[in-house]
Amino acid sequence: MMELNLLISMLDLVGVAVFAASGSLVASRKEMDIVGFTLMATLTGIGGGTLRDLILDRPVFWITDQRYLVVCFGVAVLVFFTAHKLQKRYVALLWADAVGLSAFGVMGAHIAMKSGASPLASIAFGVMTATFGGLARDIAAGEKPLLLQPEVYVTAALFAAGSYLGLTYAGLAQVFAVFIAILVGFLIRAGGIALGWALPRYKGRAGRDYG
Amino acid sequence: MMELNLLISMLDLVGVAVFAASGSLVASRKEMDIVGFTLMATLTGIGGGTLRDLILDRPVFWITDQRYLVVCFGVAVLVFFTAHKLQKRYVALLWADAVGLSAFGVMGAHIAMKSGASPLASIAFGVMTATFGGLARDIAAGEKPLLLQPEVYVTAALFAAGSYLGLTYAGLAQVFAVFIAILVGFLIRAGGIALGWALPRYKGRAGRDYG
Amino acid sequence: MMELNLLISMLDLVGVAVFAASGSLVASRKEMDIVGFTLMATLTGIGGGTLRDLILDRPVFWITDQRYLVVCFGVAVLVFFTAHKLQKRYVALLWADAVGLSAFGVMGAHIAMKSGASPLASIAFGVMTATFGGLARDIAAGEKPLLLQPEVYVTAALFAAGSYLGLTYAGLAQVFAVFIAILVGFLIRAGGIALGWALPRYKGRAGRDYG
Repeated sequence: MMELNLLISMLDLVGVAVFAASGSLVASRKEMDIVGFTLMATLTGIGGGTLRDLILDRPVFWITDQRYLVVCFGVAVLVFFTAHKLQKRYVALLWADAVGLSAFGVMGAHIAMKSGASPLASIAFGVMTATFGGLARDIAAGEKPLLLQPEVYVTAALFAAGSYLGLTYAGLAQVFAVFIAILVGFLIRAGGIALGWALPRYKGRAGRDYG
Repeated sequence: MMELNLLISMLDLVGVAVFAASGSLVASRKEMDIVGFTLMATLTGIGGGTLRDLILDRPVFWITDQRYLVVCFGVAVLVFFTAHKLQKRYVALLWADAVGLSAFGVMGAHIAMKSGASPLASIAFGVMTATFGGLARDIAAGEKPLLLQPEVYVTAALFAAGSYLGLTYAGLAQVFAVFIAILVGFLIRAGGIALGWALPRYKGRAGRDYG
Repeated sequence: MMELNLLISMLDLVGVAVFAASGSLVASRKEMDIVGFTLMATLTGIGGGTLRDLILDRPVFWITDQRYLVVCFGVAVLVFFTAHKLQKRYVALLWADAVGLSAFGVMGAHIAMKSGASPLASIAFGVMTATFGGLARDIAAGEKPLLLQPEVYVTAALFAAGSYLGLTYAGLAQVFAVFIAILVGFLIRAGGIALGWALPRYKGRAGRDYG
């Protein structure tokens, strides 16, 4: 249990850092100043977990533990001075973002389940934790929201959260359930990035066959 | 009192279902996949009540009671496979949405009053519960926000909440106050839909007479 | 201490009024009706403080104290009937907004510190309190978000909150720390308004020297 908590805590910081980097990269596309970078990094890095904690009525995780804000501020400064290099590595960031997406999906579901949320609600919390920061990032920067892109993204978070719930209810040790579920979410998102995986989209024509 | 609670609970589920349908229809206009439909249905269906419960510091209503999420998910799937039929019935949906708008306006005010909010704040909670889900829907989908449309909409929620407060303070039994206030809100919105009712809009010219 | 609380309370109402006026002016640019004015005034006036109180798990300030909503509604009605005069005084409003921005920046940090937030988090709360209402205003009205403008704005809130924290930790009496920190934030924003002060923006070219 000690080890699980340590694992969760480390995954959390990694997820915050990765999302802070994605917020900073959006700030660089919008040519913001360094304060704008910091705000976008923080909003994206801690947005999803903040909404999760608010709705679960838990103490919001970054109020007393300064590590999360330090990570966001540090990443923002780093990206501000090095984004021209990171942009050449945009593909690398997409992959790191995929890790953050599935890690947050699993952790959101784990924390919600521990807090007494129903199974369906726990999956909803996983998806919310994984996607809200990115949604807030896009809206604050006036970019086209994440939800509208064709490749699987929310779907990967859904599978990360859902498979964690499923494996835990099936009796698997939580440490293994965490790793397998993150892997499931990551592989689905990987299919979206590398192979253009996408679910069929609604087309509005009558008589289609979704099988 | 038992009956009032049952009534409130049923109106709540109806309101969630109607707003989930409107979120799903926006997802269909944006040609999202089924996961996008589910997310838009959930955001729209439970968004207003979630914000209300957060600000009132009540347990958020869908965390332990799975019916609300089941309704949102079910409506999303239903609309995904049948929206080409629903779109032909778009006018029918506008009317159902009008019921949801006034029901949520009354329930938001009722719950806030019970929780000890001031009269003015209770009206604000009614308007918030009725309109926030739709606002979140429009912003997440990148659509022109609700607030900017010319016909009465927020105004209908305001009258639903305000007349509920007024009738309750006047001593009317709550069951009757609920029905009359929903009717008031619905009729005002009906005027907006069917007759184009609109309040005078600010025009920015000097010397106008609003008298 | 009594006097500090009275001062904080008065600054709070002034800040709410000023931001309510800015929300109403955006409503006038969008030619909304009087209900739209009221909604925009309220969202802008109490948005930042509401998010602050939610995350700190404090009772949200306007639920029982009706003065805040009365101020928002009063300002909305006033601006609806007089905005053609106010718009000629748009520059005056910019300056009043600068007072609100720095006052909210200091008060957000003060309240967070009192509630046990870490120093970094307290600064984040100051910035959030000062800027979230305006961000919500711009998003709800479909305007280009505040964050993207070139002149210092968030930076002024950051300096207001940061200098309040610094002066308080340095042992200055809180009443003085409040005034000096508001002055610091106001002067920085004043430089943005009057002199076009702006931090260097990220330009995305390799090999730049930020010194």
